[in-house]
Amino acid sequence: MSSSPLSKEYPPELLPEQEQFLLSNLKDWSIAHGLTVRPAPSFVSASQDPSGVLASPAPVTLFPSLFPRSCFEEGLAIQKAYNELYSAIARDEQWLQTIVEELIDIDDFVGKLWQTHLTVKKEGYVQDLSLGLFRSDYMIHADQSIPNSSPTLKQVEFNTIASSFGGLSTQVSALHRFLLSIGAYASPATSALTEDALHLSKSATSLAQGLAIAHSTYGSSKSGRPLCVLFVVQDPERNIFDQRHLEYALLERGVRAFRLPFHRTLSDTRLDADRNLVYNPPNLPSSEYEVTTVYFRAGYSPDDYPKAEDWDSRLHLERSRAIKCPSILTHLAGCKKVQQVLATPHSPHLRRFLSDEAVASRVQATFAPIYPLDESEAGREARQLAKDPASAARYVLKPQREGGGNNIYRKAIPQFLNGLPETHWPAYILMEMIEPPPLRNAILRNGEVQKGGVIGELGVYGVCLWRNGNGGSDNGQILENWEAGYLLRTKGDQSEEGGVAAGFGAVDSCLLTEA
Amino acid sequence: MSSSPLSKEYPPELLPEQEQFLLSNLKDWSIAHGLTVRPAPSFVSASQDPSGVLASPAPVTLFPSLFPRSCFEEGLAIQKAYNELYSAIARDEQWLQTIVEELIDIDDFVGKLWQTHLTVKKEGYVQDLSLGLFRSDYMIHADQSIPNSSPTLKQVEFNTIASSFGGLSTQVSALHRFLLSIGAYASPATSALTEDALHLSKSATSLAQGLAIAHSTYGSSKSGRPLCVLFVVQDPERNIFDQRHLEYALLERGVRAFRLPFHRTLSDTRLDADRNLVYNPPNLPSSEYEVTTVYFRAGYSPDDYPKAEDWDSRLHLERSRAIKCPSILTHLAGCKKVQQVLATPHSPHLRRFLSDEAVASRVQATFAPIYPLDESEAGREARQLAKDPASAARYVLKPQREGGGNNIYRKAIPQFLNGLPETHWPAYILMEMIEPPPLRNAILRNGEVQKGGVIGELGVYGVCLWRNGNGGSDNGQILENWEAGYLLRTKGDQSEEGGVAAGFGAVDSCLLTEA
Repeated sequence: MSSSPLSKEYPPELLPEQEQFLLSNLKDWSIAHGLTVRPAPSFVSASQDPSGVLASPAPVTLFPSLFPRSCFEEGLAIQKAYNELYSAIARDEQWLQTIVEELIDIDDFVGKLWQTHLTVKKEGYVQDLSLGLFRSDYMIHADQSIPNSSPTLKQVEFNTIASSFGGLSTQVSALHRFLLSIGAYASPATSALTEDALHLSKSATSLAQGLAIAHSTYGSSKSGRPLCVLFVVQDPERNIFDQRHLEYALLERGVRAFRLPFHRTLSDTRLDADRNLVYNPPNLPSSEYEVTTVYFRAGYSPDDYPKAEDWDSRLHLERSRAIKCPSILTHLAGCKKVQQVLATPHSPHLRRFLSDEAVASRVQATFAPIYPLDESEAGREARQLAKDPASAARYVLKPQREGGGNNIYRKAIPQFLNGLPETHWPAYILMEMIEPPPLRNAILRNGEVQKGGVIGELGVYGVCLWRNGNGGSDNGQILENWEAGYLLRTKGDQSEEGGVAAGFGAVDSCLLTEA
Repeated sequence: MSSSPLSKEYPPELLPEQEQFLLSNLKDWSIAHGLTVRPAPSFVSASQDPSGVLASPAPVTLFPSLFPRSCFEEGLAIQKAYNELYSAIARDEQWLQTIVEELIDIDDFVGKLWQTHLTVKKEGYVQDLSLGLFRSDYMIHADQSIPNSSPTLKQVEFNTIASSFGGLSTQVSALHRFLLSIGAYASPATSALTEDALHLSKSATSLAQGLAIAHSTYGSSKSGRPLCVLFVVQDPERNIFDQRHLEYALLERGVRAFRLPFHRTLSDTRLDADRNLVYNPPNLPSSEYEVTTVYFRAGYSPDDYPKAEDWDSRLHLERSRAIKCPSILTHLAGCKKVQQVLATPHSPHLRRFLSDEAVASRVQATFAPIYPLDESEAGREARQLAKDPASAARYVLKPQREGGGNNIYRKAIPQFLNGLPETHWPAYILMEMIEPPPLRNAILRNGEVQKGGVIGELGVYGVCLWRNGNGGSDNGQILENWEAGYLLRTKGDQSEEGGVAAGFGAVDSCLLTEA
């Protein structure tokens, strides 16, 4: 794909009046359809808009980005297998324990999650159902060293908690289709840009459907109160419209949802004698709801737990009868260490969870090799790769700690390890770099257009609802399992001066190519 | 209604946390659904947001306003008669001429419109179809001097050009229904607030349907080019999303629309030899469209014509084969003088246009008496009323000039007339004040909540497509005629310190009462 003529001539150069037409339509359509975020404080200060009414278009790409159709279709096709895999991991407490025990000394956050699980386990779980709204993130790997090699899909990470942008992703794919339909992309250079090559993402309705299914599977009220879904959220939240779109889609299905700032968990909810989770909306002092499903859009990062009381909140929710999306075991299944042990060359673990050999092979093909830096056989192999600048150039060194610290890239790895006592090396993993093909696009962010080299990351959503079983002979059962649309997230590749700034990037959609 | 207990206890007082819940839901829903405007320059300066990406919720009421169901239903029921009336006036050039001739000396704008019509008439019109997207505006009249009198509907004005807010009106009625459905209005005091009492406005799709019908009735392309609708607009336009919603609804019907800033008319359009209107989009230099329908959202005010060239633009569009929404004669039918001669007591004019006696009576019942201040019999009667402070207290004095000057109210009228030579008096009309019932509501504008006494104004939309005929024995034919939803616009009544500021007010929806 890197050598395809298409990627060199795409996106087309627009005349100034063409770009003006595209931008004015993009800006208006985004606002008219809630493809929006609250403005960054650097753009609109809190003092200027104290009640927070202003909104701006979400950072979006002007054009849909090129993406190989074969990789896109493979990503969607294997999502059900990924849902099955991570559901199976979440149901295998013994196996998860071995993972967690390796992390407890280096990652306090993982340790506290595990401890919270053990506390509830001791008392006994009262809810057998678990819901996963997952997102598997990939990049295209185009091996430059092999001429004419086909692009392949390589997993960056698997999200088991707070998978975001499902609300906006549907909108951005509709935006790009709208811009195509009004001729905003018209140019002789865009023959690849046809409606057939654009792919609408059904993520907003499909994820809402997942919450609705959990809500109805919960059954009738145990406490005689009306039922609701609870979105546990950060406060403030700039990406609120992404979440609101799911809430509105739920309401269309007749399901009531409330937003609960995580730090208000203990003041606004309580457990009754049967551990039903009872929510008391601050705006309806005399009303109480029984919560069927707790949907975490907060609680995934150590930053969400500044006080000891915040861990009490997480325990409180986990103890409840509400279905958790996700449960703590499901949350832990998403930690990087799990990804690493699955992706370690010669690892037996994947086959433990996916019994179908053909399915497991397709999933395995999306793994970029990941090595531990410990005393195992794979670890010793990795240390050789990491210490040699020639081989290190194809790797990235990542801390095992969740969401913590900076990555060390390529030739900087040997020198970094030289300065680190070998006893600390197991706190890192070594991962083969994914080499995305060179792409270009333009991003509108805070009213400014940035153009340049970009990297795209495909996220495939999955919905999975399962029974956990008793952990013994009954290891549960999957009740619902489907692929739930996609997200393309595009950010600057940092390769060019004045190009697209690094960082979050923009929401995007796929223009499928046959390369 | 003024004595109804409901209006005293409505809207309910909310606890701070209830108001907070209502506001956060109102703000987010508005942005997520494009119930939005570009922020006022006093809120966000052009230098802060030079590319104009930011948006804020449109000024809206927190609650739907009380509105008597009988008046609401009557307003909707007679809209087809109003469409018929104004279509008939627009087709009666001779009658319009008598109106215009009375105005030419005092209103240059009306004179220039008329002159433009005459120029096209001399050459010959090439398009027999006319489209009206009308809005008839009313207030509730509750005569305080008559105990227990029923509220009645009184017309404020009839808009034949650029009737606005049809795009947002649909959204605000959906917003209020949403807020009700999530319990944001819950309170013992709001038993009147039920879903049955809320009325969704279909204006956005219904007005778009009007444009689509005109587009298809135009027929196939005369010049072999693709067809489009042209929105002739002001630039910049803060109320752009109101217009965009119509454009998107048109696109869903497969009709392509473009936005043409009025001042670019002559540079971006031309007439071919058959006077087909050919539009050349600046963003598609090699494309040309044939315009089926010109939808004026500009050109209604003298401010839109700062240069002589702007009158050339209006002439250019009027000469074209495109269907005009509205034609110049239809535009002139909406001038205040027409309303006045229809509403002058004992006027024979209404019966000229509405032959059905029963229908004419229902329309007439919505007129507030309007008097000329000329030498006619009605004029002499009016002069007596205006000079006496006792009777003047029930009237407002308005300049005849379109959109010009300030009104003089009630007891200030005699003194004002004293200072004015009698020869200038005919430049004004005297209108009986409509006495709206006291209502209360709260408005969110620029992030601030203002509470207090308010006045509501109901606008009923109408779509009418007709053939003009030859002006002689063939006086045309109505092809399509329907009521097209409603708008409630609510503004401060200026009666209270710290209340709702005067001015535009807010978009609102109707909570129908049985009073």
